[in-house]
Amino acid sequence: MQINGKAYRTIWFDNNIVKIIDQTKLPHKFIIKDLKKVQDAINAIKTMEVRGAPLIGATAAYGLVLSIIEKNNQSFLISSSKNLIASRPTAINLKWAVDRMMKKLSGVNSNEILKIALNEAKEIVEEDINFCKNIGLNGLKIIEEIAKQKKDTVNILTHCNAGWLATIDWGTATSPIYQAHKKGIKVHVWADETRPRNQGANLTSYELNEEGISNTIIADNTGGILMQRGQVDICIVGTDRTLSNGDVCNKIGTYLKALAAKDNNIPFYVALPSSTIDWNIKDHKKIPIEERNSEELSHIEGLDKNNKIQKVLIYPQKSEVLNLAFDVTPAKYITGLITEKGICEASEKGLRGLFK
Amino acid sequence: MQINGKAYRTIWFDNNIVKIIDQTKLPHKFIIKDLKKVQDAINAIKTMEVRGAPLIGATAAYGLVLSIIEKNNQSFLISSSKNLIASRPTAINLKWAVDRMMKKLSGVNSNEILKIALNEAKEIVEEDINFCKNIGLNGLKIIEEIAKQKKDTVNILTHCNAGWLATIDWGTATSPIYQAHKKGIKVHVWADETRPRNQGANLTSYELNEEGISNTIIADNTGGILMQRGQVDICIVGTDRTLSNGDVCNKIGTYLKALAAKDNNIPFYVALPSSTIDWNIKDHKKIPIEERNSEELSHIEGLDKNNKIQKVLIYPQKSEVLNLAFDVTPAKYITGLITEKGICEASEKGLRGLFK
Repeated sequence: MQINGKAYRTIWFDNNIVKIIDQTKLPHKFIIKDLKKVQDAINAIKTMEVRGAPLIGATAAYGLVLSIIEKNNQSFLISSSKNLIASRPTAINLKWAVDRMMKKLSGVNSNEILKIALNEAKEIVEEDINFCKNIGLNGLKIIEEIAKQKKDTVNILTHCNAGWLATIDWGTATSPIYQAHKKGIKVHVWADETRPRNQGANLTSYELNEEGISNTIIADNTGGILMQRGQVDICIVGTDRTLSNGDVCNKIGTYLKALAAKDNNIPFYVALPSSTIDWNIKDHKKIPIEERNSEELSHIEGLDKNNKIQKVLIYPQKSEVLNLAFDVTPAKYITGLITEKGICEASEKGLRGLFK
Repeated sequence: MQINGKAYRTIWFDNNIVKIIDQTKLPHKFIIKDLKKVQDAINAIKTMEVRGAPLIGATAAYGLVLSIIEKNNQSFLISSSKNLIASRPTAINLKWAVDRMMKKLSGVNSNEILKIALNEAKEIVEEDINFCKNIGLNGLKIIEEIAKQKKDTVNILTHCNAGWLATIDWGTATSPIYQAHKKGIKVHVWADETRPRNQGANLTSYELNEEGISNTIIADNTGGILMQRGQVDICIVGTDRTLSNGDVCNKIGTYLKALAAKDNNIPFYVALPSSTIDWNIKDHKKIPIEERNSEELSHIEGLDKNNKIQKVLIYPQKSEVLNLAFDVTPAKYITGLITEKGICEASEKGLRGLFK
């Protein structure tokens, strides 16, 4: 998708270097960053220079490529793979991508390993783009239906950033929105600010602005009254881990929006590539919920009056802070899952129907 | 209650000047501000140097006293009363306090009017303190009951600031917490940050710190998963306007917490002095919901690394922003109303039972 009128992906490989857009600097600065070693990839994931389940999967895949370039050695590769998986706990794609790479590389000799690793990483990337595009085409049908009935702008609420910046291109939750916009359907997006890291404001609103899609940032507290007032036609969010029973683990606060949607009879969809499905865990209480640094809440970066980036403390100095990154939305509050293969009920039956 | 170990009220009258704590500067600076003219009182309410339904009622009452000191003239008093009521739309106490003052001053001659106005304003203040204290004693029974059953720290979630800083002393939602703490019951408060103005962090956590009550700031998004995990025993919030049918209009986001409490079988109480009851409006859709400046969301103040207060822009420069200040929690999600006269069901029957 576009930034300043130029098409980008969120990650690409160029001359033995992995290039990423440093998402911690958006929206104030657009910086392309080089990852040269596997540790750079691990750091980029940890510090959330790259984030979003599909994108951290792709970064991990490229991280293994960097590991091979750095030191073409089996035990280094294995320790790299473990460190990559450990870099963030909740999104399942990270482990999925690393496992897929390691399976492909198992038994490969050292002359060929770089070429095969690079091909596999590129395939993961191309596949994700393709999946995201298809999520968009499948989700488009829902938006078209609402537009046909409403004969007016379709108001879509989304939480956090499940946009193209969370993937390689298109996004998951945003992909149907981009497809609808391309087809000339009038859409307007309510972008939840999404504390503490404000990815809804910093990334979703930013990327929609760059694509010329009408959007409004709201506090995370605001979705409820907008739904009560009939100002939301549909919610679409992403997911970091989808259980086989249809429960969805996504950015903290998603659950509250799903409750409000249910209370106001508003369809609540979750968009996902199949790489975010965790077929193993059956009980959402077993999902590791990441607890991040309290500074993400107590401090915030922005532009001062001289257009310089400043980090400021916004809390009382003595206060304790808890920063949980995800919550779980039970399947019963989800109208449907929008996947690359089609839309299904948020249930084991629904998912197995598409992905046997 | 205490700040830096010294007892304060949020507003007091001293030598023809109304003194307030400038709440827009908390928690970074503790500044006592002088209001000398009625326009100062109006500005203080508009800019939220004073906020919280009971406190803006008291400030409006004192505003009329300042109006009389400034110009002892009936038509000036009437225009002052109208401007005070118009200074913020949603909290009902503002109109309640002005109407009460104007009724008291109706027909009073100009020699006596200042004395009578001042007495009435002081009575409003003393009454509020008394009401808040009784809210605390009534709410204490609920916390005591939970403590008895749980035999461990009682975890209380609150939204925004319905603390002593929102009233004159004690607070509404916090009053039962202060009473429980005084009685030696172990309590811990989850303080919702409460975007956009962060009064949960800036004011609730601040005032609890100053009183030595254990508390943790969380993002507004976090309450849901804490409830799912069993880490919240009870929610207590305030209200800016309580309809006679028990629906409650309070700071934006309250509704989402009530939904989560219902979903997890957690008691959800609203604490209020009777001055916040609107006996006239029967349909919550008729409550004027204040829309405030978008800068409250897009900009934020904090301390930079040199301990200087800086205001920074945190959103993309092109983005649109909507800033609604309140939402409505339907009575069906409220376990009970804690008033100065006792606890009742959130319904017309419940309220009439206490206030005929």
